[in-house]
Amino acid sequence: MSVDFFARHEAVLTQAVSAAATRGYWSPFTEMPSPRVYGETANDQAKAAFVAQRNSPFVLDADSQAGTYAGAEVSPFDGPLGMTYPRLSVDALIESSKQAWQAWRRAGPKVWVGVSLEILHRLNRASFEIAYAVQHTTGQGFMMAFQAGGPHAQDRGVEAVTYAWQEMSRIPGQAQWIKPQGKNEPITMHKHFSIVPRGIALVIGCSTFPTWNGYPGMFASLATGNTVIVKPHPGAILPLAITVRIAREVLREAGFDPDVVMLAVHESGENTAQELALRPEVKIIDFTGSSANGNWLESHARQAQVYTEKAGVNQIIIDSADDLKSVARNIAFSLALYSGQMCTAPQNIYVPRNGIQTSAGHVSFEEVAAAIASSVQKLTSDPAKAVEVTGAIQNAVTEARIAEARGLGLPILADSVLLSHPEFPLARVRTPLVLQATPDHPAIRREWFGPIAFIVATESTDQSIALATGLVQEQGALTLAGYSTSDTVRAAMQEAAELAGVSLSLNLTGAVFVNQTAAFSDFHGTGANPAANAALSDSAFVANRFRVVQTRWHA
Amino acid sequence: MSVDFFARHEAVLTQAVSAAATRGYWSPFTEMPSPRVYGETANDQAKAAFVAQRNSPFVLDADSQAGTYAGAEVSPFDGPLGMTYPRLSVDALIESSKQAWQAWRRAGPKVWVGVSLEILHRLNRASFEIAYAVQHTTGQGFMMAFQAGGPHAQDRGVEAVTYAWQEMSRIPGQAQWIKPQGKNEPITMHKHFSIVPRGIALVIGCSTFPTWNGYPGMFASLATGNTVIVKPHPGAILPLAITVRIAREVLREAGFDPDVVMLAVHESGENTAQELALRPEVKIIDFTGSSANGNWLESHARQAQVYTEKAGVNQIIIDSADDLKSVARNIAFSLALYSGQMCTAPQNIYVPRNGIQTSAGHVSFEEVAAAIASSVQKLTSDPAKAVEVTGAIQNAVTEARIAEARGLGLPILADSVLLSHPEFPLARVRTPLVLQATPDHPAIRREWFGPIAFIVATESTDQSIALATGLVQEQGALTLAGYSTSDTVRAAMQEAAELAGVSLSLNLTGAVFVNQTAAFSDFHGTGANPAANAALSDSAFVANRFRVVQTRWHA
Repeated sequence: MSVDFFARHEAVLTQAVSAAATRGYWSPFTEMPSPRVYGETANDQAKAAFVAQRNSPFVLDADSQAGTYAGAEVSPFDGPLGMTYPRLSVDALIESSKQAWQAWRRAGPKVWVGVSLEILHRLNRASFEIAYAVQHTTGQGFMMAFQAGGPHAQDRGVEAVTYAWQEMSRIPGQAQWIKPQGKNEPITMHKHFSIVPRGIALVIGCSTFPTWNGYPGMFASLATGNTVIVKPHPGAILPLAITVRIAREVLREAGFDPDVVMLAVHESGENTAQELALRPEVKIIDFTGSSANGNWLESHARQAQVYTEKAGVNQIIIDSADDLKSVARNIAFSLALYSGQMCTAPQNIYVPRNGIQTSAGHVSFEEVAAAIASSVQKLTSDPAKAVEVTGAIQNAVTEARIAEARGLGLPILADSVLLSHPEFPLARVRTPLVLQATPDHPAIRREWFGPIAFIVATESTDQSIALATGLVQEQGALTLAGYSTSDTVRAAMQEAAELAGVSLSLNLTGAVFVNQTAAFSDFHGTGANPAANAALSDSAFVANRFRVVQTRWHA
Repeated sequence: MSVDFFARHEAVLTQAVSAAATRGYWSPFTEMPSPRVYGETANDQAKAAFVAQRNSPFVLDADSQAGTYAGAEVSPFDGPLGMTYPRLSVDALIESSKQAWQAWRRAGPKVWVGVSLEILHRLNRASFEIAYAVQHTTGQGFMMAFQAGGPHAQDRGVEAVTYAWQEMSRIPGQAQWIKPQGKNEPITMHKHFSIVPRGIALVIGCSTFPTWNGYPGMFASLATGNTVIVKPHPGAILPLAITVRIAREVLREAGFDPDVVMLAVHESGENTAQELALRPEVKIIDFTGSSANGNWLESHARQAQVYTEKAGVNQIIIDSADDLKSVARNIAFSLALYSGQMCTAPQNIYVPRNGIQTSAGHVSFEEVAAAIASSVQKLTSDPAKAVEVTGAIQNAVTEARIAEARGLGLPILADSVLLSHPEFPLARVRTPLVLQATPDHPAIRREWFGPIAFIVATESTDQSIALATGLVQEQGALTLAGYSTSDTVRAAMQEAAELAGVSLSLNLTGAVFVNQTAAFSDFHGTGANPAANAALSDSAFVANRFRVVQTRWHA
């Protein structure tokens, strides 16, 4: 290739390898939308470009303008985006991807990794553009759209490339095998080991975190020499369309067929994902979405390695606390953040019905519940600030779910109220609904995606732990949080979390929230409960995306 | 634990890690049955013990003598072994394994790896005992039974432990995450990362290489903290029973419940494997056997990580050669070795119908075919020597298959003849059957397990390559061999082998045979074609046998 992208990014890769090993804080990108870092005019340009893009066809690149167009995204803030995207048939996607693979598969690990890191670098430069795209498809507040959709998603992309590089690096290109034969000449064999990518990888995007959840699989597959077909959720195409556009630019510059990365756009209701997923040429699938669809892929796309992140019930166990207020504040923020539309957002909060110990003495169940409810209401008392935290509701189904939860007849601790967005009067903005429930109520045994939480009065912390971890194994979970001032109880929570296979956050009262994970330090998901069959990112996430084929001969 | 087995084997582990990275020749064990290494009386003692064991119950250990017994193995050399083994119900196996897991899972990587390496070390000391057990269940000649059943199997076990150790070592136990906050205090989190084994692992053994094919999965699972239920093939129980007995001795010495490793014996025809495989507690399955059973496990045991090695059609492509005689000799040995009952044994041999170029000039198809056939016949002209190579036929079904192949009506190039074994008059010993076939004959498109080979007259080497690699993708294969004096043709073979996902041996004419792979250097299987969904051993083979669960809290 004309530019040595590997050399350009090798220093960052070395740091990334070290960060993944020590798991301290590290990122190659700046998470603040700083004009100094991203350019003084970056925000204004991106905003203007977004406005200009609305109601017109999205230009992926010159080669992709033929054919039909599709797209009917609706901004949760201000209505239809009006964008359309070039659209290809499943046959055409597979055929072009196969073609592009022929040269790509031969390029080898350094080129795959170099190109991947260059794409991520350019995605970072486009963080403002991506932020507007993420905001107006997912409903995230701008700051979250920038951070989670931009640098944090890019971090997860770099992380996947890093693990891919490590695994590929462990295969020597050549070896000499010299076996002693006593007094006779040794037997000598030359051996050549080739990294052989599996073929076409399919990435099935979600509507809430299209880039954050899409990049790990996309870059794990690309960096191991596979071609990638990116199929966005019909409700959140733009962020991945920009991603694919940038990937194709870099691929073309590197001398490859840009069809190494393709965009598969379809109308809502069409089964393009299933059609692609069952094609024999598709060897890897990364999916984020519903349990029904994820389980279907795992059962039916048997020709592929399938990595899924599905639904779950995230939970908080409150046993005791130093300062109840800071506990309540932290939990309330977790519930409100992007209106519970994060796959890591807590839903069930267990509190012993006889209350808890705090440094200010004994506090009754009702007082704990009231503290959380009041923190939720306080958080949202200033709508202008609140809407930046809650964002907007991505999908009308989620709004309907709030009504369904209200209809359960459970005591309402904090009601969900409509907030008026100062900038976007059409935005669907709601505060979290907090209900009280008993441990045996069936409602707490399923996911209520959105700003819906249950405070559950349990017999004891032991029951809370048993309930929570049982539900992790039954329904899946990405997060579990615990609050306790007792070493013994915290150890019991950790033991139970490890057995149930869910990561645990203890006594979060400050600026870290259970919803958040940091690339290179926190694993996202464990692959040990029904919420996800893989973790972002570890060796298992990358090691089966390529195979090694050896050739040997006598020296 | 009382003895630090990790410390005892750490130096070997360090060498093993380095060997797996460079993939040169390395083994911690001696492959020759040398009295100097294994003890002057080792052979005599093992032979006497084997004779004494016949027709009596096998004592696994004092705790395992209750209950019923099962076992009806038949030596391919001299009839029924008469041994019976303690037998437990599926429920009892699962319950005991679960119990034993509680302390084992907490012990951590160093203990798991230390205990695993100590077991392998003691298995090595028992190589003669295992050799007689392997010989009289599989029908292998004694030397192969010793080497493949003993040190080579143990090598593969150490290799699996080595990869497991590497993957677990990459997870730091603790981390400090310190995120700068501009002029404010940084946010500091402590993080703890636990290696959490999946639970119960099931190893389903085969009748031909019970230890060689059983140890990788068994030790990959054990070294990552899982408990293991070893279910031998009803025709080859003894080698794995000895293995389990030794594993339990070491576990007991290390202070663990010996039920960390259990033996599941059943009568032929009972579906114990399926029953165990579908139990929700079984999280990992390693299987070697038929494609039907392997595919069934992959489709049905969805709660488990399933690693399978199944049937395939191994092939040889002859394009040209320096010295046809040495080619023919090497191929003939590969066909005769353990009577084609190796999963790596070649079956289809493609030769252009217009003949090939050699250093002695052009040689016709008929001459190439005759050279191979005559080498096969020569190899077996001295029955006393031949039987050591061919061993005996393990299963009457294999013998029947030879008759079935003869019945195809294809031209017979070398007929299969009965050989008389000088030591074991009852032994089923047969020379390979070599038939001639056309490329379109359906017989060459399936596996004929046993001493059955087809020499196929093709249009050209191009057609040979296309046929061979097409069949790899369709039916699976563990090995492919090629002979050519042309760089261009060899490169084409390599390219085709990489695309088809099968390892390639080129121009083998000496003391290395396509059937053989060496641990730490050759990957066995690629996981890229239907013959196996995993390779022995690589990161992907071990990395998903455990998960990482993290706990984090504010500093």
